[in-house]
Amino acid sequence: MGEVWQKSREGRITGRIGPLKESFLEEAQKRLDALTKPLGSLGRLEEFARQLVAITEKSMPVLDRKVVFTFAGDHGVTAEGVSAYPKEVTPQMVFNFLNGGAGINVLARHAGAEVVVVDIGVDYAFEETPGLLIRKVMKGTANMRREPAMTRSQAEQSLEVGADLASAYAKKGYHLFGTGDMGIGNTTPSSAIAAVLTGTPVSEVTGRGTGITDASLAQKIAVIEESLRLHRPDPADPLDVLAKVGGTEIGGIAGLILGAAALRIPVVIDGLISTAGALIAFSLEPCVKDYMFAAHTSVERGHRVMLDHMGLRPILDLDLRLGEGTGAALAMLIIEAGLKIYREMATFAEAGVSGEIPG
Amino acid sequence: MGEVWQKSREGRITGRIGPLKESFLEEAQKRLDALTKPLGSLGRLEEFARQLVAITEKSMPVLDRKVVFTFAGDHGVTAEGVSAYPKEVTPQMVFNFLNGGAGINVLARHAGAEVVVVDIGVDYAFEETPGLLIRKVMKGTANMRREPAMTRSQAEQSLEVGADLASAYAKKGYHLFGTGDMGIGNTTPSSAIAAVLTGTPVSEVTGRGTGITDASLAQKIAVIEESLRLHRPDPADPLDVLAKVGGTEIGGIAGLILGAAALRIPVVIDGLISTAGALIAFSLEPCVKDYMFAAHTSVERGHRVMLDHMGLRPILDLDLRLGEGTGAALAMLIIEAGLKIYREMATFAEAGVSGEIPG
Repeated sequence: MGEVWQKSREGRITGRIGPLKESFLEEAQKRLDALTKPLGSLGRLEEFARQLVAITEKSMPVLDRKVVFTFAGDHGVTAEGVSAYPKEVTPQMVFNFLNGGAGINVLARHAGAEVVVVDIGVDYAFEETPGLLIRKVMKGTANMRREPAMTRSQAEQSLEVGADLASAYAKKGYHLFGTGDMGIGNTTPSSAIAAVLTGTPVSEVTGRGTGITDASLAQKIAVIEESLRLHRPDPADPLDVLAKVGGTEIGGIAGLILGAAALRIPVVIDGLISTAGALIAFSLEPCVKDYMFAAHTSVERGHRVMLDHMGLRPILDLDLRLGEGTGAALAMLIIEAGLKIYREMATFAEAGVSGEIPG
Repeated sequence: MGEVWQKSREGRITGRIGPLKESFLEEAQKRLDALTKPLGSLGRLEEFARQLVAITEKSMPVLDRKVVFTFAGDHGVTAEGVSAYPKEVTPQMVFNFLNGGAGINVLARHAGAEVVVVDIGVDYAFEETPGLLIRKVMKGTANMRREPAMTRSQAEQSLEVGADLASAYAKKGYHLFGTGDMGIGNTTPSSAIAAVLTGTPVSEVTGRGTGITDASLAQKIAVIEESLRLHRPDPADPLDVLAKVGGTEIGGIAGLILGAAALRIPVVIDGLISTAGALIAFSLEPCVKDYMFAAHTSVERGHRVMLDHMGLRPILDLDLRLGEGTGAALAMLIIEAGLKIYREMATFAEAGVSGEIPG
């Protein structure tokens, strides 16, 4: 598993990702236990601090520079009536991102994070604009109900776009990445990926996306089932799954996650679509799990199935289903709270508090 | 219910608290539905925005000035071995708060909130210090296993301390209050209040607090059961419950909540102890529920029982059990995210996005 991509890039990414070292987790816990609070009483905030120390292999990590990558791509499968919105909304929303008026802009500002919009596969010819990176693999995927969404080479290219961004933003000095997506129709490929890679029936991982009717939901499930029958994607070959029933933005997200893990940069995974990307990355290299934070559990059914499959516990549960990276931006605030506790709280000795007694 | 306290203060607080007006909730939803996102896709963030509009009765509320009140008090019942820490830790932690080294200091800074520490019943003679309000009702409560924790007049006085603070900080221009507590032994009175006012067996609402052993937990349950048998607090008279088996900081929190609701200031409720205060306030005047945000669900068993009793759904679930207002500070960040979405996102019309289609 993962062998194909590993070979094709001479293992330069997946080969560099290993599990976290126990010694860093223990060292972090030792400090947490000396802080002026009952042992373990900050719960998951302590977990986040430990994980950040072990990911970065630094005794005092920083998260000063944060960035959410919103990967945008179109989907040929929208021709099958799987979404409540017309395809034109994808580029319209890209302009909304660039103007700062979308949900991700508001929440990223709130979290002190930048937003980088990546056109990885929108069916629209953008001009060079500040804040927009044009890394187009194709102008929208093909309709997976008729033909494979992408060629294998396009799927691989989408991974490389994400991995290269991880590299570039690590070099620029960013400490925390978040993933996000925009693409009308993209819950359909995400549910398809969830079904194949977790071995779950399509109907159990398919939801209403932006808000479709009962009839459209039945249609969406049928379209995914037919696509899977037509292409028979190989669950042991994540690139095959990504190519046949995936999307460019999902590939970009998977590549970003692999790149982040290879570079020891923690990465916050947004909702259903981002988690489909995370599942591709995890299926290529299970060790990436340690470098990921699952931002939230959305109302989309497939989301929880994929998180459970990877053994990731979501941070927030706020009934979100917007995507764009909105959940990731919010979760950054909570992860950072864990780090601040770790860095800024006084120890029992410093504060002159009787303690360190109970367990 | 609530009649006693209402009479004693000539209804000047509980009489002024009414339910939220449907018209404000609807007006807020109308704007939320015009923003560039699928209908309802920001889930609970939308709920928080609606509630803030209806609480403040302002079409564009602000939350610029936030404050967490950490009420500190001691408990005679610590003589019964119900806590893992010695009573001296209460004043030591107050000094830690004043020096900025405690969990609440770190998380309030992260949330952009101030911390006000209120000595409402610590068994220690503090000198006047910046950041500390001395509003001492008594030097620690009596041991409830032997005698009532407070007189009825002391319980009433603790409510007034909280209500007066709500007034003073509303006048100073604060927009959002958070509750917090410090008091070695205070999960014991909180569980006692939970048992009486929700009608739940003591063993189902009593947890390990700062981290006690199995034997100490059994002892804690026995102490609460004996105290309830001894004093027979009247569940229809919340002040009687507060006096006999409560604590000064719990009364202060209850008073703060009542005052906030009367002044249309939203208030974020922290963990078990704060929620016991909220339950006292709710039992005096059920309409306060609309003005409260339940910050989180802690690992303390009684916490969820009380939230369910009041019909409050917690915002965060991070296995916290520190108190101090730490969960409230964190939740402020999420509530504020809801308001920012409401205030700052572009509408479909402004952004030129095709939409407002689906539901």
